[in-house]
Amino acid sequence: MTALKNDIFLKTLLKQSVDRTPVWMMRQAGRYLPEYRKIRAEAGSFLDLCTNPELACEVTLQPLERFDFDAAILFSDILTIPDAMGLGLYFSEGEGPKFKKTVRTKADIEALPVFDPLDKLAYVMDAVSLIRKNLQGRVPLIGFSGSPWTLATYMVEGGSSKSFQKVKALMYNEPLLMHQMLDKLAQSVAAYLNAQIAAGAQAVMIFDTWGGMLATEEYLEFSLAYARQVRELLTTNVDGQTIPTLFFTKGGGLWLNEMSKVGFDALGLDWQTDIGFARAQVGDKVALQGNMDPVALYAQPEKITEKVKLILEKYGKGSGHVFNLGHGILPDMNPEHVKAMVDAVHKYSPQYHL
Amino acid sequence: MTALKNDIFLKTLLKQSVDRTPVWMMRQAGRYLPEYRKIRAEAGSFLDLCTNPELACEVTLQPLERFDFDAAILFSDILTIPDAMGLGLYFSEGEGPKFKKTVRTKADIEALPVFDPLDKLAYVMDAVSLIRKNLQGRVPLIGFSGSPWTLATYMVEGGSSKSFQKVKALMYNEPLLMHQMLDKLAQSVAAYLNAQIAAGAQAVMIFDTWGGMLATEEYLEFSLAYARQVRELLTTNVDGQTIPTLFFTKGGGLWLNEMSKVGFDALGLDWQTDIGFARAQVGDKVALQGNMDPVALYAQPEKITEKVKLILEKYGKGSGHVFNLGHGILPDMNPEHVKAMVDAVHKYSPQYHL
Repeated sequence: MTALKNDIFLKTLLKQSVDRTPVWMMRQAGRYLPEYRKIRAEAGSFLDLCTNPELACEVTLQPLERFDFDAAILFSDILTIPDAMGLGLYFSEGEGPKFKKTVRTKADIEALPVFDPLDKLAYVMDAVSLIRKNLQGRVPLIGFSGSPWTLATYMVEGGSSKSFQKVKALMYNEPLLMHQMLDKLAQSVAAYLNAQIAAGAQAVMIFDTWGGMLATEEYLEFSLAYARQVRELLTTNVDGQTIPTLFFTKGGGLWLNEMSKVGFDALGLDWQTDIGFARAQVGDKVALQGNMDPVALYAQPEKITEKVKLILEKYGKGSGHVFNLGHGILPDMNPEHVKAMVDAVHKYSPQYHL
Repeated sequence: MTALKNDIFLKTLLKQSVDRTPVWMMRQAGRYLPEYRKIRAEAGSFLDLCTNPELACEVTLQPLERFDFDAAILFSDILTIPDAMGLGLYFSEGEGPKFKKTVRTKADIEALPVFDPLDKLAYVMDAVSLIRKNLQGRVPLIGFSGSPWTLATYMVEGGSSKSFQKVKALMYNEPLLMHQMLDKLAQSVAAYLNAQIAAGAQAVMIFDTWGGMLATEEYLEFSLAYARQVRELLTTNVDGQTIPTLFFTKGGGLWLNEMSKVGFDALGLDWQTDIGFARAQVGDKVALQGNMDPVALYAQPEKITEKVKLILEKYGKGSGHVFNLGHGILPDMNPEHVKAMVDAVHKYSPQYHL
């Protein structure tokens, strides 16, 4: 493997000294880029892109040509695992992801197949290897998965949800079944991320998109406990290199202290969570990633610069902050506004690393 | 006016000693009740019900016949003010509230009419007076409005939103215009709530449904500052009686300390916020209202009882806790499950008031 030329993202996750704050963006390979829309139009659906390693590689690299990002992230979806389990993932326009089959009963849960990531998700590992090769050590590659709880919400509901009533009813009324399902998912997520690491991922991130819909005690029992199980099963040392791990619960700003004790190197922050407050909560235990409101990129460039400066200032001095949005970039964003954000991080962050 | 027979809700908001925890429920008059669905089917639309004082009175009183609630809440909508300003509120099935006209430019904002609650919203005051009369002092009546920020989100977006990009773009790029609009709305909300108080409301609540979509600094500047302005303009002493005030930002659990200093008597809590943490944050400054997950009412009655006990225990000893859900009850809920919740509050709360 080629030596890594820019390692400030990985170093920052491990709170090692760097000379500026690294920056990347959730959904940085995506519809806001005309070059992405071109490939997507030729390829067909979003899933057609995900399942084609060459195209997935191509779109993963696109944003690096435009912006000085310090990491690449695998172009894929958080729901590959339930799809590989046979639930039939599809996307209907404007409604988000859906599954043809749902998982709601004891029989459904017991019938979930034992999951071999190298079998059904070989296309993901192929994409990881290819991207890693084509990156040529420019920046590190992030692998990822949905969290066990978040996967379970989609599997039980059959898609996105507003109130999560089916999955929560299962959780309240059949907690043992829910635990059985989450245990199966935690093992699957760990196997999947380990396979991504083996294929070349240099950091891994777990997206807990819907943990923030739970009350505290349920968050700890049904979401965080299984993120911890995944973490414990991860192989985070490869040829003497540490593979840093990130965990992001959207809407989880109230539980950062608990999250910081689970073993992840870094926690993602949504934009509602004040990053100064977050740092005070987690102390030196973990790095933090975030957290500009993705909608703030609709602001004029001068305002975007101001927002970047405020977030850098709130985090303050020292390593441990990866600049990012607090959620994925929106599809109609002007790429020039992304440039304003990235440039501001490059320009105004070195003073915090003296 | 008839003397109030059950004042534990009002006393609790003022942190005066009571012998058990009061309980009511957001959207307690609503579709989960067959007797509501009957009236609604006869009346026509939701807005037909709201604008007819006799019917609004009838449905407001319905849940009190079934459950031992300690407060009634005016049957109305949070968006009556923009409707009265001429924006044309309507509801399309499954899509939530919408406006025929939007407010997006300087001209739109300047054209917003000076708002006289006794003119366009006389039907609300008639409903308040009629309900108060028909309650015959059984329990106090709560009046309410949407918060200035929340009203602004609907007025700019033209309805519900996922990303709030139009209203946030206005906020980022035209902050002075946004402040002008919010100032107008704060004056309107205060005039509206003062009119409800004059008509007989014995407590008033401000619903900031979308404040939680903001980053901290924007929350303080564009949501909380205008809630404070409303509070300062309220007439909260009527014939020697204090009219307690409540403020509820959904998704605002991270900002309770700031909220507790604004002058409200009580703060609403969503279900994600741990009520023990919340009490530690606000100290003795305010009472707290909440905060069972509305989806937890899908659990079996024994589980509901367990959830109620946990929330009571987390709040702990002493006055200052009004039991409620953390959001409105869902329309397909089984009323028997509501009964389990109310009964559990009645049964298990007295020990915290010894």
